[in-house]
This record gives sequence, C-alpha cells and structure tokens, in this order.
Amino acid sequence: MKTTVEQLSRRFRGVVLAIHGGAGVITRDDMSPAQEKKHLAGLHAALNAGYAKLKKGGTSLDAVEAAVRSLEDCPLFNAAHGAVLNHDGRIDLDAAIMDGATLNAGAVAAVRTIRNPVSAARAVMERSDHVMLVGQGAQDFAGAVGLKIVDPEYFVTEAQRRKYVEALEQERKSKRRPKGKMGTVGAVAVDAEGNVAAATSTGGMFNKRWGRVGDSPVIGAGTYASNETCAVSCTGHGEYFIRLVVAHNVSSRIKYAGETLLQASRAVVHDELLPMGGEGGLIAIDAKGNCSMPFNSEGMYRGCITESGESYVAIFK
Amino acid sequence: MKTTVEQLSRRFRGVVLAIHGGAGVITRDDMSPAQEKKHLAGLHAALNAGYAKLKKGGTSLDAVEAAVRSLEDCPLFNAAHGAVLNHDGRIDLDAAIMDGATLNAGAVAAVRTIRNPVSAARAVMERSDHVMLVGQGAQDFAGAVGLKIVDPEYFVTEAQRRKYVEALEQERKSKRRPKGKMGTVGAVAVDAEGNVAAATSTGGMFNKRWGRVGDSPVIGAGTYASNETCAVSCTGHGEYFIRLVVAHNVSSRIKYAGETLLQASRAVVHDELLPMGGEGGLIAIDAKGNCSMPFNSEGMYRGCITESGESYVAIFK
Repeated sequence: MKTTVEQLSRRFRGVVLAIHGGAGVITRDDMSPAQEKKHLAGLHAALNAGYAKLKKGGTSLDAVEAAVRSLEDCPLFNAAHGAVLNHDGRIDLDAAIMDGATLNAGAVAAVRTIRNPVSAARAVMERSDHVMLVGQGAQDFAGAVGLKIVDPEYFVTEAQRRKYVEALEQERKSKRRPKGKMGTVGAVAVDAEGNVAAATSTGGMFNKRWGRVGDSPVIGAGTYASNETCAVSCTGHGEYFIRLVVAHNVSSRIKYAGETLLQASRAVVHDELLPMGGEGGLIAIDAKGNCSMPFNSEGMYRGCITESGESYVAIFK
Repeated sequence: MKTTVEQLSRRFRGVVLAIHGGAGVITRDDMSPAQEKKHLAGLHAALNAGYAKLKKGGTSLDAVEAAVRSLEDCPLFNAAHGAVLNHDGRIDLDAAIMDGATLNAGAVAAVRTIRNPVSAARAVMERSDHVMLVGQGAQDFAGAVGLKIVDPEYFVTEAQRRKYVEALEQERKSKRRPKGKMGTVGAVAVDAEGNVAAATSTGGMFNKRWGRVGDSPVIGAGTYASNETCAVSCTGHGEYFIRLVVAHNVSSRIKYAGETLLQASRAVVHDELLPMGGEGGLIAIDAKGNCSMPFNSEGMYRGCITESGESYVAIFK
C-alpha cells in the first residue's frame, strides 16, 4: 500500500482534482471485469466534469461540486441516485462542501428529496447564514432557493432495491441484520488561484437505522478544507472518522506538527484509524497540487487528474 | 479578560468539573440582581449535581451528564426545558457527549420529545453502533432504549414563549427577523482515574429556520474529549465554531504544537474566532485538573468546582 500511495504522489505532482467513489467492502471477487470497467468509466466521467470547470477558469469549489454531482448522478456509487437503502427501505442523503480560501462551509443531512445534495450543501454555504441544515428544514431550504426537488423514488436503483430485499430476507432467517456496507463519494481540488476545496456526498450506511448520520456532512470529520493546509474528503466507517475528527486531524498535523500532506494523511489512516478498526480512506490535496489517497481497506474507488489533463483511476491497491 | 482567565486558572488548580450555561448576548443592563442570583444558583446546582457523582466514585462521564441534565432541567438556560423557540414556534434540541478515555462519542440533533437530550447522546454512544442520530430516528431510538419521552410543550417556558411572540411582532413591523440569540450548556470533568469527558446541550439559535444545527452536537466542533489532551465544551455562534472545528482545534494545538491548555484555548477563542466574528467561549479541562474558560463575548455563564468542593461561579468578565 505504501508503494502505491507514494508512487501515485510522485507520478502526479500538480494534481488539480482528485475524487473517490467510496472505500466500502470492495473485493476483486465481488467484481466482474465488466463491472470494474463501468466503475472506472464513472470515475473518469467525474474527473472530466470537474476538470472542465477548472479549464474554463472555474474555482476549486466549482470543480468539486461538478465532480461530486457527476458521481451523485451515476447509479454505481453510494450517493444520491444509486444510494443504499436504510432499514426502512428509504434513502437518507448527507453532503458537505468547504471552501479552503474562506473556511466557509455548508452541509445537509438526512434529506430525501434533493436531487443533488452537494449543491444543497453549497447553497447552505453561500445562501444561508448557517453551516448545517437537516431533514425537512434542509429540503424546504433547497426548494426555496430553487434547487431541483425529486420524488424519493428517483434515487432508488433496481440493484439497491434488490440488495435491500435480500437483506430483509437474510434478517428474517438469521435474526441478524446484515452488516452495513459503506460508501461515499467525494472530491478535492485546487484551482489557478491556489484555492483548495473539498466536497463529500453519501447515502450513508446500508440498512442504517434511527436517523444515523455518518462523517460525510460533519465538517472536520468527513470534509474539511483550508488553503493553509489541505482539502480532505473521507470515505469509510463513518463513526470512527467522526471520533478521530479525521479531516481536521490531517490538517492539524500539517499546521501544528509540520508534517507533509503525505505523512499526515497516512498517519491518520494507518496509525490512528486502523488500530481502532476504522476501515476506509481519504483523498487530500494541497495548494501546490500535492495529492495523497491513502486507504486501509482492500479497495477505494479513486482517481485524479493533473493540470495537463493526464488522469489516473484505480479501485484496488 | 486575560487577567480573569489566568487568575481563575491559578486559583483553581485541581478543578474536577467545569460548566457553562452559554455565552450569548448577556449584558449587565439586561439582567436584574434578582435574575443574576437565580442564574448563579442554577450554575451552583449543576456543579453540585456533577460533583456528587464524582464524590461517589462516578466517572467523568457520569459527572458531565449529571451537570448537563441539571442545566437542561433548569428553565433559565437554553437547553431542553427553557430552550429558545425556532422560527416555527417549536423547539429543536441538540446534544453530544464524548469519553476522553476511549474516544467514544454520541450525539443527537433536531430532537423534540426527549426530556434530556444529553442522556440520549450518552445512550447513542453506549447502546448503539453509531455516533450521531437525528430527528425522528433519534427520538425512536431514545424511546426504544427507555429514555423519558415528553410532550414538546414540556420544553416551552412562559418566558421563551413571550420572546417568540415579541419577535414575531417585531418581524411583522420591521420585516426583519430579530437576530438569533445563542445559548448552550455544557460540562467538562476529570475523574479519579484521570479520565476526562465533555458534554454539551442546546436549543440552538433563537428563531432559527430550515432545520439548522449548530456546533453543539458536532463532535470536534462544539464537543470533544481525549485523555491525551483535554475535554472541551463550546458555546457561541455555532457556525464559526463548526468552521474552525474549535474543540478539536484546542486539542490539536496541545497535541501537535505543544501548547498548554490555557494557550491553546485562548488562542482559538481570541486569535481565531474573534477575528472572524465568532462570538462565544468554551470550557476546557485536562487530565491533571487544569482548567480554562476563555470567552470573547461580554459574558459567559460559567463555574467550576475543585476536588475539595470549593466552587466558583460567574457571569461577566
């Protein structure tokens, strides 16, 4: 794993945008070559969507929002369309965005009708006095500012519906609830002005109950950005990411301990999360275009694109 | 302000429990001597409730939960009974708790029927696989684990109802929504084992809309605890506290920059929050019983109690 991350960082100095599509329980055995191809195409599409913004002079905020919207719209990843179903057979979505130049941030949690939660998070940041809105109130706000509201059925794919039905069946037989699979999408970027930004969006944990919210919409945990240090978007077992305040932890190691982006991000993923049992990973970028994508799970959907347009996508180590 | 904080820290080496009752817009002019006396009595009662737990060999978690429950039940502070009303005339409550020994944490947000939200946060921490539950799901969980569920009217005091009606009137006349007053309650403690804990509870911002959630239930922002560094509970303009990840920021300065508790807590409150316009304060304690209570507002309801039972309460500088 060490080699991969370091090689990546060496090969891609000058990364302008990095994305992830989750670091849940992905194994080679679960994935056919055809599926792998589709996922890689989904990652390429998201990279291109974000890169197009940057090429037209857009900000890093524009780029991360566009990349995450692309992943939200793609049925293969656990965010918006294609999100996992909760215990009640419904979909609860969370998202956050943060601007490294101003430390402005926005987040929504437990929303069910906003087509692109990441855009709602951006609207909270730019068009409200608040940082975090939840539930019906967040949906009312999104509608009031003109965001696209959809029927909750829009988010449900046939594949996720099938998984849910199978889980119900399994639960009836074994009296045990199938373990929640995780998944999240996210992006970090740096623009021509040297401003960094981060965004994350998720359907949360499969079969979750009780209005559970993970790390994605929690500023400092799943999402954080500061020009002074870095922009971070996380994916994995959210409870551990909240308890270790992962994204801000990476930033703090750079700011206060003088670690490099690579040192800080790897220390949190391998030396802090892993010993606690916190499976997952993160993507991080700094104002100079240094990039790191450490993960302690078997795989993490990920990719990055450099200023010249050269891109890289991968799933496994 | 410098003098007060430093004097306090010198006088109260060996603090075992510190509390706050908010750092909203408190001015001497607004408060009659009789009101001041009542508030100080409320703080004393909360200190005694937490101290009683510690004296009986209870943990720091027991102490912060008991102190915060006392403040939640007191009609004078903005948490549970006595909380401020939101824009719809309802009350939305948030709370969090964190155990510095294990980094376990629990939080609830946007709940309307749980009598003591801090106890719900503790139940989330100890009796669920999750850290954060919101809305109806959180209420269902609290009911399922046997916590006291009440009619939402229980939380509404005559004083807060009157403020809400006056605000509506003012809004109709001036077409402007009265500025949201803040307030929060919280506690930090260290026990005989040297374990620290933090808890925070709030009704959020007066007249808030759109399901707004502040920093209180956001682990890392309004609440954080680690034996290695300190336990922190914040109060103030929550949006700024989220953006600066205040509680974890104090901890990170101690852990990575080698600052003292006093240096770290004052730097965040005076050098980071204040320049951004982030009004408020925090209470912090470490495993040795060092305590700091910096604030950049005109007042902060606060108090602490030492191992011998000597206590101190104050409102203004």
